[in-house]
Amino acid sequence: MKASELADALGLPLVGDPGREIATLAPLERAGPDELSFVVGARLRAAMCASRAGVLIVPEALAADCPVDHLISPAPYASYAQASWLLTPELRPAPGIHASAHIDPTATLGKDVSVGAFTSVGAGARVGDGVILGDGCRIAAGVEIGAGTRLFDNVCLSYRVTLGEHCRVQSGAVIGGEGFGYAPTAEGWSAIHQTGGVRIENRVHIGVNTTIDAGAIDATVIEDGVIIDNLIQVGHNVFIGQNTAIAACAAIGGSARIGRNCLIGGATAINGHIEIADGVTVTGTSFVSRSIDTPGSYGSAVPLQAAREWRRTFAALSRLDELLKRVRRLEKATSKLES
Amino acid sequence: MKASELADALGLPLVGDPGREIATLAPLERAGPDELSFVVGARLRAAMCASRAGVLIVPEALAADCPVDHLISPAPYASYAQASWLLTPELRPAPGIHASAHIDPTATLGKDVSVGAFTSVGAGARVGDGVILGDGCRIAAGVEIGAGTRLFDNVCLSYRVTLGEHCRVQSGAVIGGEGFGYAPTAEGWSAIHQTGGVRIENRVHIGVNTTIDAGAIDATVIEDGVIIDNLIQVGHNVFIGQNTAIAACAAIGGSARIGRNCLIGGATAINGHIEIADGVTVTGTSFVSRSIDTPGSYGSAVPLQAAREWRRTFAALSRLDELLKRVRRLEKATSKLES
Amino acid sequence: MKASELADALGLPLVGDPGREIATLAPLERAGPDELSFVVGARLRAAMCASRAGVLIVPEALAADCPVDHLISPAPYASYAQASWLLTPELRPAPGIHASAHIDPTATLGKDVSVGAFTSVGAGARVGDGVILGDGCRIAAGVEIGAGTRLFDNVCLSYRVTLGEHCRVQSGAVIGGEGFGYAPTAEGWSAIHQTGGVRIENRVHIGVNTTIDAGAIDATVIEDGVIIDNLIQVGHNVFIGQNTAIAACAAIGGSARIGRNCLIGGATAINGHIEIADGVTVTGTSFVSRSIDTPGSYGSAVPLQAAREWRRTFAALSRLDELLKRVRRLEKATSKLES
Repeated sequence: MKASELADALGLPLVGDPGREIATLAPLERAGPDELSFVVGARLRAAMCASRAGVLIVPEALAADCPVDHLISPAPYASYAQASWLLTPELRPAPGIHASAHIDPTATLGKDVSVGAFTSVGAGARVGDGVILGDGCRIAAGVEIGAGTRLFDNVCLSYRVTLGEHCRVQSGAVIGGEGFGYAPTAEGWSAIHQTGGVRIENRVHIGVNTTIDAGAIDATVIEDGVIIDNLIQVGHNVFIGQNTAIAACAAIGGSARIGRNCLIGGATAINGHIEIADGVTVTGTSFVSRSIDTPGSYGSAVPLQAAREWRRTFAALSRLDELLKRVRRLEKATSKLES
Repeated sequence: MKASELADALGLPLVGDPGREIATLAPLERAGPDELSFVVGARLRAAMCASRAGVLIVPEALAADCPVDHLISPAPYASYAQASWLLTPELRPAPGIHASAHIDPTATLGKDVSVGAFTSVGAGARVGDGVILGDGCRIAAGVEIGAGTRLFDNVCLSYRVTLGEHCRVQSGAVIGGEGFGYAPTAEGWSAIHQTGGVRIENRVHIGVNTTIDAGAIDATVIEDGVIIDNLIQVGHNVFIGQNTAIAACAAIGGSARIGRNCLIGGATAINGHIEIADGVTVTGTSFVSRSIDTPGSYGSAVPLQAAREWRRTFAALSRLDELLKRVRRLEKATSKLES
Repeated sequence: MKASELADALGLPLVGDPGREIATLAPLERAGPDELSFVVGARLRAAMCASRAGVLIVPEALAADCPVDHLISPAPYASYAQASWLLTPELRPAPGIHASAHIDPTATLGKDVSVGAFTSVGAGARVGDGVILGDGCRIAAGVEIGAGTRLFDNVCLSYRVTLGEHCRVQSGAVIGGEGFGYAPTAEGWSAIHQTGGVRIENRVHIGVNTTIDAGAIDATVIEDGVIIDNLIQVGHNVFIGQNTAIAACAAIGGSARIGRNCLIGGATAINGHIEIADGVTVTGTSFVSRSIDTPGSYGSAVPLQAAREWRRTFAALSRLDELLKRVRRLEKATSKLES
């Protein structure tokens, strides 16, 4: 790709040789003369000045000092994200239904749909234009998939799941499993039939082996632009607001309500039935034990110590209550001594 | 469904119009004249009195105040669970073997079995009456599945797994993977062959993408009526007693023994080789670091704080040991001053 | 298997009857006259002396006291691991391609390869000699799999994944999903195309439903002899050094670098972009919040308490900062009183 083509595609001004050929992306410190990289801010000025990249995407403020050809962007990282799809285009299977796939005759498929080997599509399912279903996917009866969505391999969409447009679902993810709702009885647990399904809006990304359960009566809902990493559990009737990002291995309890534009760190657990306001950040490995009604950063992760030190801290911790009492006694004794 | 039919099916007395048509379930605050809901206790009296539901399931103590038609139940939530399957019956595939399934000729299938597309059943496997195997399931050679059990899609049952009757296994669950047992050697880790398999009794429910490993010599065992949510790891040779419930993302170390009627909260980790008595509750996100021999509630989850506050707490925590020493010094000094 | 054959296969001296028939393995306390067990050290001397096993594998130091036939080993547990594969040999499907498998005509398969039912192998994939692919596996275009490697069922290897020789990948594992890399923009999250793939070296074991993401530009790398348990997330561009062992449900953030010969406990979370030195042990359920540059044992897991006690500890913990101030005041007052 020529530098000028890249500039046009990204809509950015190019300073340098328009005919320079750019083959691929590379990290800033390693990028060579046919590679593209980027600089987000002043912190990387020195690395930029030492760079031998073919083209750098830089912010206005650093452009004057940039020693190599560059594109000036108000958001270099976002421009770089765009460039990553231009320079290393996605491998997409050609439209068509693999001979081994099983499509129920009552399912409707849009234009230019690709269905992989051993994928099954159930009765009445509706698959939009340009959808890609990988190999071994299970699309239950009645499921709806919006235009431009891609499922990788062995993805399961169960009964009453709707997926919007331009979503991306990684391999092994299961959407619409039965929510974990049981009434205790004298004879043991009695399951409540979970019939609410899952409604996923547009441009939602769902990670590998992530599980999103069907709601009990109402649907589990994931709004536009949410990104969800791998091995995440989303319980029944959870609501996740627009553009919230959730890192790997988070566990979200049933009926939790997460606002818009939240950042949920990895391996975080969120209690069922709580509410998190818009714009909340939860640091990784935390336990959201209660609702959060004010935007800001929250956490409960315990930082690492050497094991020996940690054992000592914990021995002390279990004596904390007693310590409080001893300090109270000392305060009384001291005030008596003082008077 | 007529109210009288519902009353008969649930075995509950109906107060009101026997001919009223009930279409579906709804939450108490939203249920309309053709919908069923329920009230568990006095806490919901006001909501009950405001309800416009067609029929409510209520406890005896609230029946007199109930403004709408109602069924009187000693356990309204359990009755509601039953009703959920009557009013919104499960979609069940018709019995029959999908043309694309691969059944080894030495496998034996009971009456009215349903096998989905692209499912493979190995040599000598025995599948009981009325079993439903979804699409893309892998039933290894010799596996036994009891009558009335349902596997959803892409479920794997490996070598030496037996599943009892009326179990329910959600999509992507894998039962019988090789347990994580290794001997260290000078050349690296040397695996111990795990040949004990998994024995799962009756009415066990297993969640999406949950993993239950095969035992080393003896089987991993899950007793009757256990319910296990999504993304849970059950290590090799674990034992889980009758009717225990385990919420999502729990991690259970090898050879742990969990008693009957326990409640294990989500994202809880249980150490290998420990024992938990019958009737123990572990609150979510805890670490069961040691055996528990007395019924009751246990936990170690750290509650959430604002990040800034949390950092301050942790700075103090790391000085706890020192603080103890300072208090000891103060106590000596004060007692000297007092005498 | 005769005791003498076992001795020959393990390369260990036999004390006792060379013709004794050994049928299988058993735990020390239960092993009968046709069973093999082992004793690791002096801690088990009493159990050894009471054993009725057909043959025991014992260390030199205990051999004189062993009441039954025995093999003397410098590493009894490692010898036992070897013996487990001899006495209960692995069930391996015969070489051959299942009639239902789909192999792209441009893929190349080595000698004695076994491909299971409904498995798909993409264009240009290269599968080494003696490889076993289970049922329902997805081998993307261009993937390379070294000789002697075994994949169980429903395993997905995505674009740009290479697996070395003699690896073992459990069912449902997904290698090469798209890493979780996004740039924030005014319109929402913009994904960065992840094209670095995954490079897994030799003798690596990967657990059930574990997920290993593709790197952004460079590969995610797992060196020789690493063992990884179930439901583990390995983020993009992670590096895991030789012979490191990671227990179930660990979450490893993107670009984390874990050294060689580390032991990572179950349900542990490791921050992205941190480095862990060779020879580090992290106890289970910890949060590796920062880099570790010195070998040794580290942790942050909070030990279990009864729930009531735990609530009291935590109430006190939140007052810790205030307590520190009170002790400081007491110290001043006391020193004033003393002078």
